[in-house]
Amino acid sequence: MSDRTTIALDAMGGDRAPDMVVAGCELARVRYPDVTFVLVGDESRLRPLVSGRRRLDANVELLHAEQVVSNDDKPSVALRNRRQSSMRMALDLVREGKAAGAVSAGNTGALMAMAKLVLRTIPGVDRPAIASIFPTERGETVMLDLGANVQCAAENLVQFAVLGEVFARVVLGLQKPTVGLLNIGAEELKGNDAVREAASVLREVSLPLRFKGFVEGNDIGAGTVDVVVTDGFTGNVALKTAEGTARLCTTFIRQAFRSSLLASLGYLLARGALRRMRDRVDPRRYNGAIFLGLEGIAVKSHGGTDALGFANAIGVAVDMARHGFIDRIRQELNDLGLATEAARRAAVG
Amino acid sequence: MSDRTTIALDAMGGDRAPDMVVAGCELARVRYPDVTFVLVGDESRLRPLVSGRRRLDANVELLHAEQVVSNDDKPSVALRNRRQSSMRMALDLVREGKAAGAVSAGNTGALMAMAKLVLRTIPGVDRPAIASIFPTERGETVMLDLGANVQCAAENLVQFAVLGEVFARVVLGLQKPTVGLLNIGAEELKGNDAVREAASVLREVSLPLRFKGFVEGNDIGAGTVDVVVTDGFTGNVALKTAEGTARLCTTFIRQAFRSSLLASLGYLLARGALRRMRDRVDPRRYNGAIFLGLEGIAVKSHGGTDALGFANAIGVAVDMARHGFIDRIRQELNDLGLATEAARRAAVG
Repeated sequence: MSDRTTIALDAMGGDRAPDMVVAGCELARVRYPDVTFVLVGDESRLRPLVSGRRRLDANVELLHAEQVVSNDDKPSVALRNRRQSSMRMALDLVREGKAAGAVSAGNTGALMAMAKLVLRTIPGVDRPAIASIFPTERGETVMLDLGANVQCAAENLVQFAVLGEVFARVVLGLQKPTVGLLNIGAEELKGNDAVREAASVLREVSLPLRFKGFVEGNDIGAGTVDVVVTDGFTGNVALKTAEGTARLCTTFIRQAFRSSLLASLGYLLARGALRRMRDRVDPRRYNGAIFLGLEGIAVKSHGGTDALGFANAIGVAVDMARHGFIDRIRQELNDLGLATEAARRAAVG
Repeated sequence: MSDRTTIALDAMGGDRAPDMVVAGCELARVRYPDVTFVLVGDESRLRPLVSGRRRLDANVELLHAEQVVSNDDKPSVALRNRRQSSMRMALDLVREGKAAGAVSAGNTGALMAMAKLVLRTIPGVDRPAIASIFPTERGETVMLDLGANVQCAAENLVQFAVLGEVFARVVLGLQKPTVGLLNIGAEELKGNDAVREAASVLREVSLPLRFKGFVEGNDIGAGTVDVVVTDGFTGNVALKTAEGTARLCTTFIRQAFRSSLLASLGYLLARGALRRMRDRVDPRRYNGAIFLGLEGIAVKSHGGTDALGFANAIGVAVDMARHGFIDRIRQELNDLGLATEAARRAAVG
């Protein structure tokens, strides 16, 4: 690639910003030496942080922003009154084509609202979704929506399936990703209307998408499919339940190792292996909630993350940019529209 | 107690029935020597199983049932055509007052449909719910609904709150259980209409119920509240996601211990402690999905469970029976009705 990729960073978003963002940027620079990072935020605070890290010089530009979006700002307020904020200006850079993507660890609701307004949704997408990558027994799975849309109609779920499938193919590099709709195992009346309708559309429409039907909550961790599609309410609960359960397991293991002298000794011996295990499920490795369905790349880092986590969120944005994710999505959605239209004509005629 | 408690067991339900049921009954007999168990099922198969276990004689009665509900039977079919089944006859014993509760490891949908028809719902309950106990960082939490009601209105959630609170108080023995409504952390528009409306009712109605507002998926494992209330779709996904995540953690730990000689040695030393840890989250310990809101006790054991798991499901039914759970529920629902009525009058006048 001759052109350098540019990524805009909301330097003021996140519990430990701006220090954490600058440190994360420094980590990302090592992995992506040919990417330019635009740090958007309070220049008087950013300048000393950047000049203290000499190797950042060649890769970093600063863009001063007067305002900051706080975690308490309601999305509607942020839209109206935070036009000069670091978050908004980072997204503006993406819209203007000056950056390929934006990363922020700030207020999720505000970021989603601003991203929708500034970047706009891709034709064929009614509502963008939030996606994330989960570790599984078989590798990695993408799940969406994780909270952008509390209630979803069947067509939203169908669109999410396409968005997630392209993400798994383009960004995770899977050849022919499989897609499942999250449902429950109740007899007779499986799931709600939206889920059943979406399933019948995905079964009938001819798309290069490998739809595997319904999956259940335990299939997320099992890695039964590469893409799990659900509404934002269910997805958010599933995401946080998985996080909580993983934390519970860690607590129980820690208590087990501390419960006797022999167990403590065992821990000392197994320590290295256990650390590698923990790294596999390290939430920082899977940091980066991706806003899918927009005319630009926007990644939300966890607000409480550290430099390593933020660097991983940056990595997601870089990967999406380099693989031309938005163009691929546009193409697939166009195909979905044509396929749906063809199916409708076939049903009528 | 002078009167013996009698529990009806669907001896033909479950993957490994009837052997597993009889073996589970034998385990339960040790813990509850003064309980009588009625094994309902194919007498020609049950008789040899029971006579092979001499100590069971004094505690067990057999009741022959011609039919068996299979896992493929739709609930509607089971209702119409399985009136002579072991499942149905076990529930009939409860309705007739000949047993205090019924336990089955058979078809969940059929059991729920039959239990609703045979036992009927308690006045004040529109729809019964499925509840279960979860291990948490702070002890145990009850969650409901886990799949009986895919879509729930606010009043259903309010009733679930009362049902779950009484269960936590009476069966888990908690003094003043706290209750939370499962929701997502999205800004501005928290959750759907039903969840928000239920929260406002629970906040306003004067009940001896400690309502703590909204909780999120991670609060289940953290044990933030004693009772987590949600609709059956979300609850079922959360339950299975938690199960899947726990399994994933176990797989990763096992792989870690096998990854090097040192780690294997460490495992040998810590083995006992790790086994105790595993016992704490053993799904068999938490076996028994409780149908709440019915005029009788019905407990669903996991279909794939073994004798130990089935014995624990029996234990839940015995505990509920001995604590007079149904009467307590009736009283609380009556209070809820009066409190709701009082709140309505106050709002109007």
